[in-house]
Amino acid sequence: MHLTETEQAEIAAARDHSVSTRRATVPALEAMLFTPVPVLDHGFVRVIDYMGDDAAVVQAARVSYGRGTRKVSEDEGLIRYLMRHRHSTPFEMCEIKFHVKLPIFVARQWIRHRTANVNEYSARYSVMDREFYIPAPKHLAAQSVNNRQGRGDVLEGDEAADVLGLLREDADRNYTHYEYMLNEDRVDPDRRGLARELARMNLTLNTYTQWYWKTDLHNLFHFLSLRADRHAQYEIRAYAEAMLAMVRAWVPASCRAFEDYRLGAATFSATMLSVLRQMLAGEAVTQADSGLSKREWAEMMDTVGR
Amino acid sequence: MHLTETEQAEIAAARDHSVSTRRATVPALEAMLFTPVPVLDHGFVRVIDYMGDDAAVVQAARVSYGRGTRKVSEDEGLIRYLMRHRHSTPFEMCEIKFHVKLPIFVARQWIRHRTANVNEYSARYSVMDREFYIPAPKHLAAQSVNNRQGRGDVLEGDEAADVLGLLREDADRNYTHYEYMLNEDRVDPDRRGLARELARMNLTLNTYTQWYWKTDLHNLFHFLSLRADRHAQYEIRAYAEAMLAMVRAWVPASCRAFEDYRLGAATFSATMLSVLRQMLAGEAVTQADSGLSKREWAEMMDTVGR
Amino acid sequence: MHLTETEQAEIAAARDHSVSTRRATVPALEAMLFTPVPVLDHGFVRVIDYMGDDAAVVQAARVSYGRGTRKVSEDEGLIRYLMRHRHSTPFEMCEIKFHVKLPIFVARQWIRHRTANVNEYSARYSVMDREFYIPAPKHLAAQSVNNRQGRGDVLEGDEAADVLGLLREDADRNYTHYEYMLNEDRVDPDRRGLARELARMNLTLNTYTQWYWKTDLHNLFHFLSLRADRHAQYEIRAYAEAMLAMVRAWVPASCRAFEDYRLGAATFSATMLSVLRQMLAGEAVTQADSGLSKREWAEMMDTVGR
Amino acid sequence: MHLTETEQAEIAAARDHSVSTRRATVPALEAMLFTPVPVLDHGFVRVIDYMGDDAAVVQAARVSYGRGTRKVSEDEGLIRYLMRHRHSTPFEMCEIKFHVKLPIFVARQWIRHRTANVNEYSARYSVMDREFYIPAPKHLAAQSVNNRQGRGDVLEGDEAADVLGLLREDADRNYTHYEYMLNEDRVDPDRRGLARELARMNLTLNTYTQWYWKTDLHNLFHFLSLRADRHAQYEIRAYAEAMLAMVRAWVPASCRAFEDYRLGAATFSATMLSVLRQMLAGEAVTQADSGLSKREWAEMMDTVGR
Repeated sequence: MHLTETEQAEIAAARDHSVSTRRATVPALEAMLFTPVPVLDHGFVRVIDYMGDDAAVVQAARVSYGRGTRKVSEDEGLIRYLMRHRHSTPFEMCEIKFHVKLPIFVARQWIRHRTANVNEYSARYSVMDREFYIPAPKHLAAQSVNNRQGRGDVLEGDEAADVLGLLREDADRNYTHYEYMLNEDRVDPDRRGLARELARMNLTLNTYTQWYWKTDLHNLFHFLSLRADRHAQYEIRAYAEAMLAMVRAWVPASCRAFEDYRLGAATFSATMLSVLRQMLAGEAVTQADSGLSKREWAEMMDTVGR
Repeated sequence: MHLTETEQAEIAAARDHSVSTRRATVPALEAMLFTPVPVLDHGFVRVIDYMGDDAAVVQAARVSYGRGTRKVSEDEGLIRYLMRHRHSTPFEMCEIKFHVKLPIFVARQWIRHRTANVNEYSARYSVMDREFYIPAPKHLAAQSVNNRQGRGDVLEGDEAADVLGLLREDADRNYTHYEYMLNEDRVDPDRRGLARELARMNLTLNTYTQWYWKTDLHNLFHFLSLRADRHAQYEIRAYAEAMLAMVRAWVPASCRAFEDYRLGAATFSATMLSVLRQMLAGEAVTQADSGLSKREWAEMMDTVGR
Repeated sequence: MHLTETEQAEIAAARDHSVSTRRATVPALEAMLFTPVPVLDHGFVRVIDYMGDDAAVVQAARVSYGRGTRKVSEDEGLIRYLMRHRHSTPFEMCEIKFHVKLPIFVARQWIRHRTANVNEYSARYSVMDREFYIPAPKHLAAQSVNNRQGRGDVLEGDEAADVLGLLREDADRNYTHYEYMLNEDRVDPDRRGLARELARMNLTLNTYTQWYWKTDLHNLFHFLSLRADRHAQYEIRAYAEAMLAMVRAWVPASCRAFEDYRLGAATFSATMLSVLRQMLAGEAVTQADSGLSKREWAEMMDTVGR
Repeated sequence: MHLTETEQAEIAAARDHSVSTRRATVPALEAMLFTPVPVLDHGFVRVIDYMGDDAAVVQAARVSYGRGTRKVSEDEGLIRYLMRHRHSTPFEMCEIKFHVKLPIFVARQWIRHRTANVNEYSARYSVMDREFYIPAPKHLAAQSVNNRQGRGDVLEGDEAADVLGLLREDADRNYTHYEYMLNEDRVDPDRRGLARELARMNLTLNTYTQWYWKTDLHNLFHFLSLRADRHAQYEIRAYAEAMLAMVRAWVPASCRAFEDYRLGAATFSATMLSVLRQMLAGEAVTQADSGLSKREWAEMMDTVGR
C-alpha cells in the first residue's frame, strides 16, 4: 500500500480533529477511523464514518425514546433473539462508510451487492494510478480439477515465475500505452491525446480502482456471510476479513450473534433433517437411501464431523 | 404532543450526554438532536442520528483521502453541479435517522417510499396508545369538485361540528373496545383477552403509530420533493416541512441546491419547450395550436406567470 | 369473496382471450390466470401475469442463447445447486404479478417487504368498499401467555360472541359514518362532503383494500419463507399459502428446491453444531453445559426430534 | 457481431416456437424477440422476455379486474397524466429482460443502476471469448479541452492509426497470454494452468462480457433518460438507443409520454423560472444580474433557443 505524502497528511489531519457530539459513539471504532488497513499488495480498506452502535439496534427494535437503562446483558439477549429469528430491520439502523482501494476484477464481484451506496473514482474524469494486483506466490493457484470455479494447489517453479512475469509485464505495458495515448498536459505537443473515457479501456482488470462504499449493518452482514466464506475468491475474502475485524470493534454483540448464527452456522435441508433424526435415533443411514446426492451427503457429513 | 415523564427524562438524558468524536459533525443539527418537533395534534418528528455533512458529499464525489482544503465556495459550486446534473450517488453518502409519531393513514402513504429502513412500533407485540388525529378546523376540507384526489374549501358550521364529533367518537369508542377485548393484565379475570395481533384490527386509521425511519440524503430529497410539494396531502406535508427545516440545518449547501433545482423547479416537456421558444420569439401561441391539452396549457401558463 | 357482475364479466373476458406468443409459457399457471382464489372471509389472490419458468432460471444462470437442449433432470440438478449455495440472481429472472384483496392490517405487514412493485387502490381518489375482515370462530385466538407476539387457545362462548359482535358493529358503524361524511353525489344536498383523503381515517384496520403486487421469484421465496412460516400471523399466512400453491404450478423444480432447502430447512448456529457433533459422537450433553439458552436448547431438541 | 452456428441455431429454434397464452402480448415486440440487434463492433442487445403492455400500466393504476373497455385514447391520456405527475409505480408493472453483449468498461457504467436483476457470464467459471471493442475511426475522440469528462474532436492521421494499433495489439496479446496461462485441457501437459478466477485479471477492459439484465419499465426509463442522453458516453448510449427502439415497439404510448416529458424535456431551477418570467414579460435580463452562473446561463439560453 502506497500513499503519497499529501494523502498521509490528509489522513493525519482528519485523525487529529476531534469535536463533541451527542450521537452514539464507539471508542474502539473511533480509534480505527480513517487509518487504511492494507489488503492485498496495494489495496486498503478504511472506515470513513459510521452511525449507531449495538444499543442503536436495541433502541430501534424497541422504538424507544432514549438509550435505555437496561443491562448490557439484556441488550445482548435481544440482539441474539433478533439475529436468530431473522429480524433484519433493527440491524439496518446502523450504517458504515468505507474507502476501499481494490483491483477492478474484485470491484466487479463486489458491486453485485446492490443494496449499498457507491462512489467510484472516475476514469472518465481522472487518470488512474499505475498500480496492479500481482498475487503473492502462495496465492498463485492452479485451476481446481473438481470444481469449475475453484482453486487447486499453488503453482510452483517455472510455471509460477512465468505467470507472474506475464501478469506484471502485460499490466505494465498496457498502462504505459494508456499514459501514452492520454498524452496528459500534451507532453508530446504533436498529439492531441485520446479521451480519458476511451483510453481506460486499454487497462487490465487487475488495475486498482477505489471507491467510497456505504451500507447498513444488515446488508454488511449479508455481504460478509458470502464474502468472508471459505468458498469466496481469496482476493475479495481478504477485504471481507479486514472489514469483519472492524465490525467486531464497532458492534461487538451484534457481530458475536452474526458469527454464531450466520457465519459459523449451517443450514440443513428438510431431507438432511430427516437423515439427522434417524442418525440421532441410532439408525444406520447410508447415502444411497438418504435421498441426498453424493455431494450433499459429503457436505453434510463434513458439517456434522462424521 | 404528549410525552410521559419517563419519555421526557429519557430525551433529556440523551441530550445531556456528550462525547468526543473524529466524525463529521454539524453543530446546528446537534442542537436539534433528540428533541421532538410537534407535527399535527399528537405527532412529532425528531432526529436520532446522522452521518455526514455537506463536505462529505464533496469528499465522496472526489473519492478523496481527507476532508479537503478547498474553499467552502468551491464545495458549494460542486454540490450545485452535482444536483443540476442529477449525480445522485454523492448525496447518498449522508444518512439520517428519524423517530416519527404519525397517524396510521399517513404512515401508509409514507411507507410507499421503499428506499429507507424502518422499524415500526409493533401492535402484535405491544398495546397502542390512545391517541388519534383529529384535524384542526382549518384543515377540515371538503372534497374538491374538480380534482378527484384533492381538497376543496373548508367545511364550516354544523357540518364541521358533525364531522369532528363523529371522528372523535368513533376513534374513541373503537379504542375503548380494543382495550376491552385485550383485557390486559386480566383486569376482568373472567375473560382471557383477545390476541393483540387481532384486537388491533378494531382501531381506526387515524390512530397514531410510531417508527424509526432512516434514509440517505438523496432519497430523503426525493421524499421531500414529493411530500413537501403543494399537491401532497396536508397531513404528510406537515411532516415533510418539519423535516425540511432539519435538513436545512444539517446540510445547508445541499439543501439550497435542492430547493433551487428540485423543489422550486419546473420541468417543461418537449412540447412545452417548443411553445416556450415560440413565445420568447414573440410569436402568438394559443392552446388550440400548441399541442398541449387544456390542463397542461393552464399548468404551464401558471408556471411562467402568464 | 364477493365479486360484482361486472368484475366477474371482466375476469371471464380476460380468461377467454388467448393469443400466440414466443415467450416461455407455463400451461399449469395459464390455467389459473386471473381466477381469484378466496382467502379469509372477503379476500382473494389471483395471478395477473408472469415472466419465465424453471428453464428461464437455468438459462439466466448459464447466460445462454437459447432454451437449452439438456435433460430436465440436469436442469433440476442445477436449480438445486443454485438454491443450496444461495445463488439468488438466477431466481430473480422470473417475475410474477398478483392482484390481492386483503385487510389493511395485513397489508401493513406485507408492505414491509420492500423489494416489490405495488399499486394500491387509492382511498384519496376512490371510495372504499364496505367489507371488513371478521375472524372465523376457530381463528379467534386469545393472547398467548408465553409469547408476547403469539396466539394462545381459541376464545369460546360469551367472550367469543362478545368480541365478534364488537368487531362487526364497530367496523360497520365506522363505515356508515365514513359514507355519511363523504356524502358522495351530494345525496344530502345541504352538506358538501368531507374530502375522501380525510374521511378514510374513520375506517377500521380490518377494512379490505386491494393492490397489484409484483415481485421476482427470489424475493417471493423470501416473502414465503417468512410468511408461510408457522410463526407468521395466521391472516398473512393464509395468503402466503395460497400463493405457494400457485408457485408450485408455475416453477415446480424451483419450488421443490425452495421447500427442501429453505421452507422445511433449519439453521444450526456454530454452538448448536458443536452440540450436534457431541450428540452424534454418543456423548451426553445437557442444556446447562451446552452453551445454549434454555429456549435455544428447546428449539434445537424440537428440530432434531429429541 | 459474431454468433457461432450453435448460437444461431438456438436463437432460430427459440423464434420458431410459439404457444398460446392468456397474458398481455405485444405483436410488435414478439416480432423482435430473441433476435440480436448489433451494437458497437461485436456487441448486441436482444429481448428475451417481457411482461405487460401499455394497458397493463393503466390496469395497475386503476387496480382493475380486467383489461378494461375504455378507449385507447383514454388510456393514453391516463398514461400521460401519470408520467407528467411522476407516478412511477404503474410503470413498474411492466418488466423486460435483455441479453446484452458489451465491453467490460461499459458494463461497469451500466451496473451502477442498481434497481435491476443481473446474471453475468462468469469468468471464474468459464473462459471468456477473444473479442474486444475497438472504436470505429469516427468515434476515436480526443480528450475535450473544456470538459474533463467529455470528448473533443476525432483523432486523425498518424495519431489515430497509432492508437488503434495499440488498442488492438494490447488486447490481443493479453488475451493470448490469458489463454496461455489458463492452459485449458492441458494443451501443454507440463503446465497445470492458472485458476480461471486469477487468469482473467490479465484481460483488458475492452474485452466483451455478456449478461442477462432485467428491469421494470420505470427503472428502464430512468436508465434511458441518463444513458440515451447526449452527455452519456457514446459507447453506452449506443446500447441505450437500441433499447429505446425496442421500448417504442413494446409500449408505444408510455414511450411517447417518456420522450415528451422526460427525454426531450428540460428542468428550470427556481432561479431560471424567475429569469424566464422576466423575459416573457419583455424585461431585459443579463447573465450578470440573473443569479445564474455563466455556465447555467449558457445552458438555459441554449434550451430556450436564444
